[in-house]
Amino acid sequence: MGLFKSESVVYKPVNEVNLGPDSSEFYLQANVKAPRMTGILVKIFTWFLESRIFGGLLLYILKGNNLIHKLITNAELEEPPLYVPLHHFEDHKEKEVKCLDSALTPPEKIHLAIDCLPTSSETAHNGTRPSFCRWTIMDYSRAYSSGDITPNLVAERFIAAVDESSKPSLQMGFFINYTAEDILRQAHESTLRHQRGEPISVLDGVLVAIKDEIDCLPYPTTGGTKWLHDQRPCTDDACCVKRLRLCGAILVGKTNMHELGAGTSGINPHYGAARNPYDTNRIAGGSSSGSAAVVSAGLCPVALGVDGGGSVRMPAALCGVVGLKPTFNRVPHSGVLPLNWTVGMVGILADTVEDALITYAAISGEIPSHQPSSVHTKINLPLLPLTKSISDIRLAKYGKWFDDCSDEVRTCCSHALSKLQHHYGWKTVDVTIPEIEVMRLAHYITIASECYTSLDSFRDKHLAESGWDVRVGLNIYGAFSSMEYIKAQKIRNRQLQFHNKIFAEADVIVSPTTGVTAYPIQDDAQKTGELDYVNGAALIRYSISGNFLGLPAVTVPVGYDKMGLPIGLQFIGRPWAEATLLHLAFAMQAICLTEYRKPVIFYDLLRKD
Amino acid sequence: MGLFKSESVVYKPVNEVNLGPDSSEFYLQANVKAPRMTGILVKIFTWFLESRIFGGLLLYILKGNNLIHKLITNAELEEPPLYVPLHHFEDHKEKEVKCLDSALTPPEKIHLAIDCLPTSSETAHNGTRPSFCRWTIMDYSRAYSSGDITPNLVAERFIAAVDESSKPSLQMGFFINYTAEDILRQAHESTLRHQRGEPISVLDGVLVAIKDEIDCLPYPTTGGTKWLHDQRPCTDDACCVKRLRLCGAILVGKTNMHELGAGTSGINPHYGAARNPYDTNRIAGGSSSGSAAVVSAGLCPVALGVDGGGSVRMPAALCGVVGLKPTFNRVPHSGVLPLNWTVGMVGILADTVEDALITYAAISGEIPSHQPSSVHTKINLPLLPLTKSISDIRLAKYGKWFDDCSDEVRTCCSHALSKLQHHYGWKTVDVTIPEIEVMRLAHYITIASECYTSLDSFRDKHLAESGWDVRVGLNIYGAFSSMEYIKAQKIRNRQLQFHNKIFAEADVIVSPTTGVTAYPIQDDAQKTGELDYVNGAALIRYSISGNFLGLPAVTVPVGYDKMGLPIGLQFIGRPWAEATLLHLAFAMQAICLTEYRKPVIFYDLLRKD
Repeated sequence: MGLFKSESVVYKPVNEVNLGPDSSEFYLQANVKAPRMTGILVKIFTWFLESRIFGGLLLYILKGNNLIHKLITNAELEEPPLYVPLHHFEDHKEKEVKCLDSALTPPEKIHLAIDCLPTSSETAHNGTRPSFCRWTIMDYSRAYSSGDITPNLVAERFIAAVDESSKPSLQMGFFINYTAEDILRQAHESTLRHQRGEPISVLDGVLVAIKDEIDCLPYPTTGGTKWLHDQRPCTDDACCVKRLRLCGAILVGKTNMHELGAGTSGINPHYGAARNPYDTNRIAGGSSSGSAAVVSAGLCPVALGVDGGGSVRMPAALCGVVGLKPTFNRVPHSGVLPLNWTVGMVGILADTVEDALITYAAISGEIPSHQPSSVHTKINLPLLPLTKSISDIRLAKYGKWFDDCSDEVRTCCSHALSKLQHHYGWKTVDVTIPEIEVMRLAHYITIASECYTSLDSFRDKHLAESGWDVRVGLNIYGAFSSMEYIKAQKIRNRQLQFHNKIFAEADVIVSPTTGVTAYPIQDDAQKTGELDYVNGAALIRYSISGNFLGLPAVTVPVGYDKMGLPIGLQFIGRPWAEATLLHLAFAMQAICLTEYRKPVIFYDLLRKD
Repeated sequence: MGLFKSESVVYKPVNEVNLGPDSSEFYLQANVKAPRMTGILVKIFTWFLESRIFGGLLLYILKGNNLIHKLITNAELEEPPLYVPLHHFEDHKEKEVKCLDSALTPPEKIHLAIDCLPTSSETAHNGTRPSFCRWTIMDYSRAYSSGDITPNLVAERFIAAVDESSKPSLQMGFFINYTAEDILRQAHESTLRHQRGEPISVLDGVLVAIKDEIDCLPYPTTGGTKWLHDQRPCTDDACCVKRLRLCGAILVGKTNMHELGAGTSGINPHYGAARNPYDTNRIAGGSSSGSAAVVSAGLCPVALGVDGGGSVRMPAALCGVVGLKPTFNRVPHSGVLPLNWTVGMVGILADTVEDALITYAAISGEIPSHQPSSVHTKINLPLLPLTKSISDIRLAKYGKWFDDCSDEVRTCCSHALSKLQHHYGWKTVDVTIPEIEVMRLAHYITIASECYTSLDSFRDKHLAESGWDVRVGLNIYGAFSSMEYIKAQKIRNRQLQFHNKIFAEADVIVSPTTGVTAYPIQDDAQKTGELDYVNGAALIRYSISGNFLGLPAVTVPVGYDKMGLPIGLQFIGRPWAEATLLHLAFAMQAICLTEYRKPVIFYDLLRKD
């Protein structure tokens, strides 16, 4: 590949890099050199990419234009590679937390988790009743316990709502698979338990949707494709699904997703685009598009997604819901499609921080093992609401990065952050996070190489059955050498060192969740899929460290742009410091809650008819 | 690269593979398709390999011919990748062991270690005095303590011996760097300590040589090249060297090695071939060639090497000394050339198992850390000699693999093993270790990709200064895709599962250490280096699992072929079970000791003039 001699970068030793606000480190904006393509253009491009003669050259030019040669391939780096972002368990002794033994059963964990919840009067910050809010797990639980409503009725309403949302006039594209019989069967069992006064937990009878990347019986796991489930039959619930089922949750089906998780729009050529409940002509964001959309539309208080490059947080932000991606390996990965091994993990999409907390308690913690060597971790949950006694939280902010988004996102997020600081008296620490664009490229090489490997045995037979954007993606994914992969892992080590230093000075890093709000679904994109790496880069801008470094992160809705589209603010935390993140997210939510707006598409399943 | 459609293998799930003696798993002999090349042939080959037009095609053919496409590139594997063979520390509760706290200082560790040694009468098994044995650490220590001899005198004799061995008539090629002044300075200080009756430990005044891949002041670390030390100055002792220095050892210089560790012969075009003390026309084996040769020739009881693909064990076997490669990460790697990150580690070459034990105690154990999360391990040492109370050791033997060596190696190793079993009543468990050749290829892809990455920034400038065999190697090393690298890591996971299952049935795996004994150094090889992948594969055949899976392994001399060339037997153990390995190695040594032969080149530094 030595056709042209490229430039290269010699990276400074980590200790010589200034991470302070006065740093001379250059903020490199992502300058993605790839035009938006759909329709016939994508097909021609794919033909070139797959051709023996032009393919290699085209890939070489693409990599060069996007600075991969300069910043990674030819780069000189001292650091040894860090292949997997596993973190030794560390008990941070966070303040105001409840500590769970991770060996407890999921219902036991939930039982303890609800002690962390605020009374309802503490929910909104200024005591005002919010004009709009979604029904929470506790709302469902109370309604079931009081006998006001049964899981049966909620399930029926759910099925009717999903049927309606699927009609040609709406085509919300929420689900890839759901079966009324299975939902009603679960609802019936839950109803009986409630009638006997023996609900398993507050989740008993609560509807939960699962991204179609996670095994959940009786459904196949399509991964958003038309073929993967035939090659890899689903034979059991994934561990996280099993835990929810153990709590009595009703698993309502498999949500739509970007095909193979390989995109950020959620436009799926096989199952339709998952549409945004705030504007049905716009994307829900991806790849966990359906999971975000169903929570936003009030169909479930909680859904599970998988986040390999912001895939939980981005759609959560775009759909105005909470998105939590825990520390790498916090939630067991078994039963999730192995599309990568070092960046992705299960995350939670929820209507409120409280519901994210309950779900987090239910699904996290390692699988109990009889090996004497296995690490026994604890699960810390925040005691909500945050009391003023926590006065010393320090929020790291990298101004150039924070501001690298649309005007409306910037204004809204800055405003929310100011209100948060003002109310709690917390300090912002101005920092510089160097080489963010390098990290994005290194993450891309990593997830691309792993996904390519994962799908290798299916590629020849089934790539032609994929959408054109995925076909293009999978051709690019195979373009990396082992050296490029290893150098990407050196970048991972380097970035973790930078982040560790920042976390020595601050408790969390704060940023917008996405650089733009939900953009329109263009007609030409729906059949062929869409190549829009420019919008993709703006969406993914703030997500990478959560995946590449395995850090926990949470997004909370903090406002709307002029079009009424939701905007999210993100907190990124130290490994294992989910409790701090949830504390902050709750504080943020309390401030913004009274301003929440109802989406255009919304189903009230607890309504009193 | 899809020029030809290759075959591919679909690997069975691990649990369906029969590991018993009746397994139908096919033993695939390494069928290396690469002719031996030296001189002008190597140069022409390199020209083709480095040419833009033929290079890619040639690499493709080489990979295909050597089954890489079939067994790795196109293979279907279920396992997730395992990138680093780190093992959770496990205390095996081995019998008859002394347990050291790894936080002790090196002299404290040695002080406890010598309690493990047998009395001298227990050394040889049948009580006969061996006709030949090398002076051990305890011999030196006793001689210094009694005043019979001083470290000063030993150092002078050492310098004279090395000078003599370097003369044109011998050209043993033991060292790349040593300075009489530095050796004499250390000897003088040690002599004073002994005169004061205050030696630091039994290592005080004992000569130790260091492979030129490990930092040791005041020497540059050449890695066997003419240029690397200019690019990467040596500024401190490596951690393992520092520990030996703390014990009072005299560090006598940097031993010769295969250039960049990238070969198994130890023929170095810049510093000469390290010659075998048993036959100076033959190789010492590589890559830690000089370290094995100096111990064999009696110049030091102990030397350090680095073992990334048998590089300690192979030369140890070929030179008739003991070679110990501990569990991955048992000895801190800091200060060792970062030529790879997941397969290599420091190992010990020693005259006897006892001296390997003492040195192991001195250099092993993690660097003490103040992080609460760091794992605190223990170091188990065997109480020698092994008492008959250990009656239940099970030795796994894979017959087809064990026998895949020269007739003389097979006969000698089988004979030694029989005697061992006969004497202790231990049982052999017949097993099948599947896919050994696949593991060799996966290890090759791994070490090659990592080495290529490690040297990337130097390649353009300095590759032309390397020997031709290394130039060829580094061209091949860069030929792998990120998918091939990741699939190699899937093979690593798969093989670790196989080995774990075997270790559930047996305590160690036993095999010859190399498939052949030392082969002749051909005249045409000395200047250009030699490409001899066929002999290389025979040498490396039994080494791979130690590196790729991070398992501890030890080689003991057990006899000689008809040419009088040494033969080694290898024990491979469970992670962290070094004590069991050393027990077995000592038992084996005790049986063979009386048959040990003196090499042609031998220096008696404790002689009474």
